[in-house]
Amino acid sequence: MAQHRVGSQTFTYSGRPTLAAGASVVGPREGKGPIGQKFDVVKDDALLGEKSWERAEAKMLQEACDLVITRTNRQPSDIHLFLGGDLLNQLIAANFCARELSIPFIGLYGACSTMVEALVIGAAMVDSGYADAVLCGASSHHDTAERQYRFPTEFATQRPPTSQWTVTGAGAVVIDRSGGLPAITHGTVGRVIDMGMQDPNDMGSPMAAAAAETIWQHLSDTGRSPADYDAIVTGDLGSLGRSVTIELLKRANISVGDRLEDCGLMMFEDKQDAHSGGSGGGCCAAVLCAHLMPQLAFGQRKRILFVGTGALFSPTSHQQGESIPCVAHAVAIEGMGS
Amino acid sequence: MAQHRVGSQTFTYSGRPTLAAGASVVGPREGKGPIGQKFDVVKDDALLGEKSWERAEAKMLQEACDLVITRTNRQPSDIHLFLGGDLLNQLIAANFCARELSIPFIGLYGACSTMVEALVIGAAMVDSGYADAVLCGASSHHDTAERQYRFPTEFATQRPPTSQWTVTGAGAVVIDRSGGLPAITHGTVGRVIDMGMQDPNDMGSPMAAAAAETIWQHLSDTGRSPADYDAIVTGDLGSLGRSVTIELLKRANISVGDRLEDCGLMMFEDKQDAHSGGSGGGCCAAVLCAHLMPQLAFGQRKRILFVGTGALFSPTSHQQGESIPCVAHAVAIEGMGS
Repeated sequence: MAQHRVGSQTFTYSGRPTLAAGASVVGPREGKGPIGQKFDVVKDDALLGEKSWERAEAKMLQEACDLVITRTNRQPSDIHLFLGGDLLNQLIAANFCARELSIPFIGLYGACSTMVEALVIGAAMVDSGYADAVLCGASSHHDTAERQYRFPTEFATQRPPTSQWTVTGAGAVVIDRSGGLPAITHGTVGRVIDMGMQDPNDMGSPMAAAAAETIWQHLSDTGRSPADYDAIVTGDLGSLGRSVTIELLKRANISVGDRLEDCGLMMFEDKQDAHSGGSGGGCCAAVLCAHLMPQLAFGQRKRILFVGTGALFSPTSHQQGESIPCVAHAVAIEGMGS
Repeated sequence: MAQHRVGSQTFTYSGRPTLAAGASVVGPREGKGPIGQKFDVVKDDALLGEKSWERAEAKMLQEACDLVITRTNRQPSDIHLFLGGDLLNQLIAANFCARELSIPFIGLYGACSTMVEALVIGAAMVDSGYADAVLCGASSHHDTAERQYRFPTEFATQRPPTSQWTVTGAGAVVIDRSGGLPAITHGTVGRVIDMGMQDPNDMGSPMAAAAAETIWQHLSDTGRSPADYDAIVTGDLGSLGRSVTIELLKRANISVGDRLEDCGLMMFEDKQDAHSGGSGGGCCAAVLCAHLMPQLAFGQRKRILFVGTGALFSPTSHQQGESIPCVAHAVAIEGMGS
């Protein structure tokens, strides 16, 4: 049996499973951001004509899934496994989406790292012959997330500068063995890290420790340096979390500097008042599909480390005085010219 | 590359990954049930001396994980992957447990099917060399679940006869390649099925359709009949859901009858007033570890199909008038003499 491991936390995918296609659907605010033109669908109404934001989120994820399946010239019945999740209690967006798709479904929860959880497992399932094609998807919605985690948006609560803006968006990819590019070569599964921080309006700082740890572990496991990657793209630390991650890595003698980019910072520009940047499981999922995958496919980036970061708290754990444990998972993705 | 599939939804694990050990921790009520003597640890206090039921649940899961790791003569650092989850919002029991264990962690959510989600993926990761040893764990707690899904237990709300009693318990297994028994030979990933039912006090009926569908699919994919299994053990349909499942399978010309057993019915006896039976992610996880795995190891059962069933609703989706989508996943487990 082939050994698909290197170091203590990293999987190697010897068959180079392919990111065959991606699709993204976002809300109106996201469509006005710096990469707004790149998303496949920009909705002009965050409710998508539905009766609730929750239904809107499920519909957005479903549209992304339907679109990406069509792009690979498949029917849902050709997809052997759907790995997905969202930020909502009991993953209702992903569950309702999976009901409509009728593809064998495993629900994942890693907060904003969910898409990378799906990629890490999905690449393994394709690479080892458990599935010919795996659908990976994640979503988030500003209004569903705010009322669940913080305050209903109707309250118009003042948001502190450390806060991030939960993205209304969904992204979905199909992984298969078609042999093209981009290809996933490694996956690093993170450990849960808790720095004792407790502020639900600052997710970036506690997630930074998890991001730094997983980036460090990935480089250590693979014997690579940051220079082996055109970019290390996190999702989503925001500006504060990004700065803390760079500083933490510097203390471990790893210099990333401008090479560390963040999906949350690509999604919005300063004048959009998103404060520390975008966040939510749909943020890095949509940025991957709309922005990073095309860059990799056309050689604008040759190799990236894509790092999903998640804050694993709940309103209940916060109200009970618990700190915020965080996790980060990474996949190495190679594009044209790598 | 080996093809690890058969039929449309079933994985085959050619290396026969081993359930190397299991461990279970339950609350006082569960300890008084028909298999109460078999659990490794029975707590005399559902709070476990903690300040909240949520902390108690996380501690219970952690104790089960610590115990099973020790039983395989390993340290947490020898375990390459932890797959786990629970019923709580944002999986806080599993997340806090993963923080303490410091094992690379992927959070799963499949309601009461979570343990089988973990086994399906965990067996694949071990069988294909991504991990030498995978820890799979799931938990539930009566009081955390009731207040999250229905009413706080302090309300002493009247429970209808269709309701199930969420088990206070946790189970954890280590899957490795030690080559012993019990061994996992197949995994069938379910599709999300929705019969349009909406009663959060009757999970058994909607889950029955998912259970019947996955059992049917597994038998179809593998070319097996119910007679190939000593038992098809669901977790957790309760008495009502079990009856409906038997009837649905009968309509598909599959006769299971007494061969269909349910973990929720093994956990409590009638006089314990659990109504339709036990439920919760910790129920089938603890029954697997305490009751089924020893039976398989010592030849009392030669081969079982272990079917986890989950109701994928949330209080929000219920209040918004949505029906209850359900899922079931299955693993075939072989014991001595199989």
